[in-house]
Parts: sequence; structure tokens; C-alpha cells
Amino acid sequence: MDSGSAIPPDWSPSGIVTLTTDFGLTDPYVGIMKGAILKEYAAARFVDLTHGVAPQDVRAAAWFLSKSWSWFPAGSVHLAVVDPGVGGERQIILAFHEGHAFLAPDNGLLQAFLPSSTLLWPLDLGRTGLPAPSHTFHGRDIFAPIAARLAAGTPPALGREALQGLGGVEFPEAVRCSDGSVDTEILLVDHYGNLISGFCPGPEEADSSLWEVGIAGHLVPGAKTYGDVGSGDLLALLDSYGHIEVAQRDGSAAQVLGVGPGDPMTVTRKSN
Amino acid sequence: MDSGSAIPPDWSPSGIVTLTTDFGLTDPYVGIMKGAILKEYAAARFVDLTHGVAPQDVRAAAWFLSKSWSWFPAGSVHLAVVDPGVGGERQIILAFHEGHAFLAPDNGLLQAFLPSSTLLWPLDLGRTGLPAPSHTFHGRDIFAPIAARLAAGTPPALGREALQGLGGVEFPEAVRCSDGSVDTEILLVDHYGNLISGFCPGPEEADSSLWEVGIAGHLVPGAKTYGDVGSGDLLALLDSYGHIEVAQRDGSAAQVLGVGPGDPMTVTRKSN
Amino acid sequence: MDSGSAIPPDWSPSGIVTLTTDFGLTDPYVGIMKGAILKEYAAARFVDLTHGVAPQDVRAAAWFLSKSWSWFPAGSVHLAVVDPGVGGERQIILAFHEGHAFLAPDNGLLQAFLPSSTLLWPLDLGRTGLPAPSHTFHGRDIFAPIAARLAAGTPPALGREALQGLGGVEFPEAVRCSDGSVDTEILLVDHYGNLISGFCPGPEEADSSLWEVGIAGHLVPGAKTYGDVGSGDLLALLDSYGHIEVAQRDGSAAQVLGVGPGDPMTVTRKSN
Repeated sequence: MDSGSAIPPDWSPSGIVTLTTDFGLTDPYVGIMKGAILKEYAAARFVDLTHGVAPQDVRAAAWFLSKSWSWFPAGSVHLAVVDPGVGGERQIILAFHEGHAFLAPDNGLLQAFLPSSTLLWPLDLGRTGLPAPSHTFHGRDIFAPIAARLAAGTPPALGREALQGLGGVEFPEAVRCSDGSVDTEILLVDHYGNLISGFCPGPEEADSSLWEVGIAGHLVPGAKTYGDVGSGDLLALLDSYGHIEVAQRDGSAAQVLGVGPGDPMTVTRKSN
Repeated sequence: MDSGSAIPPDWSPSGIVTLTTDFGLTDPYVGIMKGAILKEYAAARFVDLTHGVAPQDVRAAAWFLSKSWSWFPAGSVHLAVVDPGVGGERQIILAFHEGHAFLAPDNGLLQAFLPSSTLLWPLDLGRTGLPAPSHTFHGRDIFAPIAARLAAGTPPALGREALQGLGGVEFPEAVRCSDGSVDTEILLVDHYGNLISGFCPGPEEADSSLWEVGIAGHLVPGAKTYGDVGSGDLLALLDSYGHIEVAQRDGSAAQVLGVGPGDPMTVTRKSN
Repeated sequence: MDSGSAIPPDWSPSGIVTLTTDFGLTDPYVGIMKGAILKEYAAARFVDLTHGVAPQDVRAAAWFLSKSWSWFPAGSVHLAVVDPGVGGERQIILAFHEGHAFLAPDNGLLQAFLPSSTLLWPLDLGRTGLPAPSHTFHGRDIFAPIAARLAAGTPPALGREALQGLGGVEFPEAVRCSDGSVDTEILLVDHYGNLISGFCPGPEEADSSLWEVGIAGHLVPGAKTYGDVGSGDLLALLDSYGHIEVAQRDGSAAQVLGVGPGDPMTVTRKSN
């Protein structure tokens, strides 16, 4: 298969590039990467998803991007650079899915959420015409110009065969027990101290007021929204990611319960 | 009054949307909200005012927006989402003032600084054509597409009558005493450790070198600018918000005085 | 020399304005400055280099900008506002270099990295037509509208003679010893805990696997890239700034070695 055919004939770039990295905001690394994109395609427009992924936490980056990309217009380029293998043998992969383009290191980040049938195209660095990259900042030296070309509609140089890449990084499981309860764990603590679980209920059981959650010796009642409980009370509800979360109204559930990512949660149908 | 008339006939959007939230920058919530705006209006352009409002601190958001909006071109949409009542009964309101549009929850945020004669229009969610929102993220599900329509010049669906909304959240008072001194408090500690007071002197008394400030057992002399005192010295001056602040040259007044928001300050005319 | 000639005849603005400040991201100061730019030139486009420079750390701002500007398209305006002298006598200077424009206070920030032959033009505030500025926020009141004019291609009002400005702020020296080793210090600790040294090897000695670094009682072997050592091991390599850095693979060298900016490092040719 010719690499030209890796770019879907209907790829119609929006000019928007989203950025997900572990670069932080104190160093100028994010700005430099944007500069390198603009140098190749001056009309590019950026949206930062987050640069606050913990250093080298590929799983968190995969989670954030998996829950964000579909809110953007088709034609967007989603660039994710959490890259512990920079400078080594890992490849850089490009994928298209539902009219969006995804560019990331081949470290399981994209495989975590793109359907397994998605073709993952390796960049053929020798054919990009880019100068020799540094050993430490491929975000600037490779990802940026390639993302620019995608946003501009210029096909980048790809390998001739799609990869059978790594397996994806894995999110915490939600195990359905025989009694209907679900054993899972805290996937993420957000900025508000909400505890986002690994359990994503199906549409027929998405009414969170029918659930209750066991966590850290507490049984937290399900509710539909924060206003259904008093200020300072704990509640379990369906969050904006579509997962069950435990929150404290007007406070931080993480702080009041003293828990964090990886700690167990059990989600059960309310008995009454 | 027909809701169509809520959009002033001279509303001429600049395409700029400013964002003020308590979302923080670690989760992708801000990015997702921008994506949802771009999906409805691809030409929208964003300026972040701040996403560092403390969770649910409606007053801080009101303060920041009140001091920022007029620096933007007319035609800007100012979106403020600090929304402890999300998912409950509170309405979402739209207001126009001096050629700018303001969109926020009806929780006193806008009422804190818009003139009391400003009409506050509730969104009529049933007529927006938006899908059913989540219970937890109206920033993405409602505010974003409505802000996009405002920026695009498309009238959103509004209720037929302007609200008599809540009273505004209140900023600390500055009480003028009979001897001409002013009792107030620390409204805000900024990034530099400057102590911004609730006292905003009138034009005829804006020369801050004529004041002195009592705080935490210190009498801090007024000055016009940082360079008027030695490095490490405390001074009181008129800050960029138009309020009297106490600062330490080349240092943090908050740290050296051990004070914070709510602590009392007395602003007095210099005796000599 | 007439001030009109300070604008090179080939100045061809890209419309891009980069921003480097010590404003932080919690207050709306950055957003207000962007608003003031947009008010003067609505088509301006922003890239944040960083707003996380420590308050008044002119040297860090100079370093970040020196390593970033050349990654942007020619025609970009680089605005740097770390300004301990705001409100005092210091001037504001404009310089052009390799098709880029630089605007900063005359405090050594630009002189630290622009060639000494670069002409530094002082703004002539009396001729800008701007209203009287505040004493505390020239970023909003002066830098913003002038940056906007540069980005729009409108010449700002400049003094008639280029300045012989201050000397530049200085970065740590790297002293070449008679035995070929290099004595330097930690210039910067980045977000990953990498220790960036003051030593920038020439092209003929840029292969970092030939060096080793003495630091805090450790002798850290040189390598080409993170993947050349095991997880948790220390290594010295050429970083993306072109300097020798000490890093810990999958960890923070700053944390494991307990060192910070100013601590000494000795870079030596490997003996074997």
C-alpha cells in the first residue's frame, strides 16, 4: 500500500491543532513547539488540552485525549507528546479516525482509545526532509513540523505499511461481579478533588441516583447532581466523562476521604 | 418584550471569547470547552483571563472579570463559568453592556459589577436546540455553544422577560470614617504577594503618595511607584486595578506581613 | 538618524506576538495585556512562551527568550515584560534582529542575547499618543499597544538615537580549564528536574557520550539519549537548548541529587 493512501482522500483540515503534553507551563517548551508549527504553517490555531500530565504518564495523557478529541471539529490534528522513549527506537505514529488526525509516539497512547481496527502509520523520518533532530525534544523537531503539514493539508512522509503497534496503555478495569456490583478503582483525581472511577455505566444504568459507592469505609449515596445533597456532603454521580465519580459538594472528596488514584471503589445498585 | 430584541441591533461580534473559570489547567476541561465552541463557530478566538479562580469562588471570578472586560475590543464575548449550582435550578444569563456580551450562571457573578439597570436575559434552554446537557459540565454543554453563537452573531434562544436576578456577590467595603480615614480589608493577594485593598480612591485623591496604610501593626507609607522606596521596603500605591495596594519592593508583602484576604487595612491621609 | 529608519524597510510582520512575563496565570494580568493588544490590532495572534518566570527574575526571562525566538516565523514580535523598574526612569526598548522584533524594558533582558551590534531604540512615550500610563502595569498601558502596532506594521514612536543601553544580564560562565575540563554551574532546573548547565559545547565536541559530569559528589556518565541508560540512572546529555544537562531517566535529577540553580558542575572529557 502506498503511503500516499494513508491520508484519507476526505481529510479536510480545520487548521486546529490540540496539544497534550507533560511539558508543564514554566519552561518555554510548549511555546517553542507552537513556534515550530507556525514556522511550517503560519495559519495554525492551537488549543491546549493540558500540559499538566505528570512527567512520562502516558496513561493520563491517553485518558485526557480519549475524552476530549470528539468535542473538536472534524479536521482537527491532535498532537500528544508524552514521550519517555524520545531519542530511542520508538516510532512516531499517525492515525485517522472519524475525520480527526492523531499524532503521538508509538508508546500505547493512541492504542489506548482508538478502535483496534484503526491503521497506525509510522513516520518515515528519512523521507520528511527534516534536519537531524535533537535527542531530547522531538516535540519541536519532528512532531511540530509534521503536525503543521497535517493541519495545512500537506501529506507527511509515511512508511509503506501500517504498524501492528504496541498494545495500548490500559485504564483501570471495572469488573462486574455476579451480584451486579462493580469493583473498580480511582482512575483520576481532578482539580476539584473529584474521584473519577474506572466505571462507565451503560446507557440503561446511567441514572447515578440508583447507585451507591463504597470507598474508604464510607457508603456514598448516588445522586443526579451536586445540588441534590447538602453543602459538604459526599455524593456519587455520573460525571462529564461518562464515568461514576465521588464528589463532595463545595469541597474536595480526595481531601476529606484521604484517597487517590489506584484506591479501590465498589459501585453497587442501591438496595432500597 | 420579544427575546429577539435582547440582542442589541448594534451587536457586532469581534469573534473574541474571553474565558474565566475555576477549572484549573491540569484537567482538559478548558480545552474541551474551547473545542465545543469551535465546533459551533470555527473562527472563534480565545483569550484566557484566568482558570485559577479557587473552586467555586464566584466573588473572585466577578472581581477578575470586572477589572478585565473593558480592556478588550467591543464585540467580545465574556464567558465566566464558576458554577457551584451546575445541574440545579439556577438559570444561565446573558447581558450586553457597552458593546460587550457577558454570559454566566445566575449566581451573582455578573450582578456584582454590571450596572443595576443592565437587562439580564435568561437562556431558554428548551428553545436552543441543544442536546440534553450533562448534570456536571454546562461549560461544555450549554455555555460553549451559546458563546459560539454570540461570537458568530447568531442570536441564542432567550426567555421572553429579563430577570430580576440575584443580587451581586459583594466585594469588601471601604468605609469612609468621619476623620477621613478608610477602613477596608485585603480583597486579594496577587501573584507577587501584593495586597489589594477594597479601597478605590476617587480621581481627586488618587495620588497614592498622600496616603499611608495601617496593616498588621505596621504603618506603610504611600508612594507613587515601586522605585520610590528601597529594595525590600514596604509601600502603599495605586495599583493597576485602581485600588490602593500594599507591596514590598522586590518581595512579597503577603509573606513579610503574614496576612491574607479578609485581614483589615486602614487607609489614612498622611499627617505631614 | 531619524526614528522612522529604526523600522527596517523589510519589516514584514507575521501578526504573531510571543509573550514572556513573570505575571503568573492566576491573576488576569496576561489576559488583560492580550486584550489591550487586540484593542489596538484585532488580528494579533498570541503564543505564550512562559508566564512562570519567578517574579523579577530578568535573567530567567532573558534565557527563555534567547532559546525560543528563533523557532518562530520571521516577522514575529517578542514581548518580554519582567520589569522591576516599572514606573521609574528605565526606558522601554525596541530592537530588530534577523527579521524579528523584540520589545522589553531596558534592564539587560535583550542585551543578554542580542548581538552587541544590535541597535536598541528607546520608545519616545511623549510621541506615542498613548494616555498617561499607570505606575504599575506598563505591560497593559505601553507594551501592549506598541506591540500591537509592530504586529500591525505601524511604526511606533521612537527616540531619535539608538541607546547605548545597560550591559546584558549574564548567564553562568563555563570556564575552560587548562586540562580541558569545564567548570560551570546549574543554570536552570526544568519541569522534569533536569539540571541545565551553563556549558554549551561547540559543534566538534557536541557528542555528549564523550563527556562526564561531576556534580554533588557523583560522576555522571555522558550518553546520547535517555534510552542509553537504565530507568532511574543518571546521565549527562546534550539538551534541546544545546547545553549539557544532567538528567535522571524516568525521574528528577534535581530531587535525587538535592541540587539547584547555582550549584557547581564540572564537565570533563571521559578518560577512557
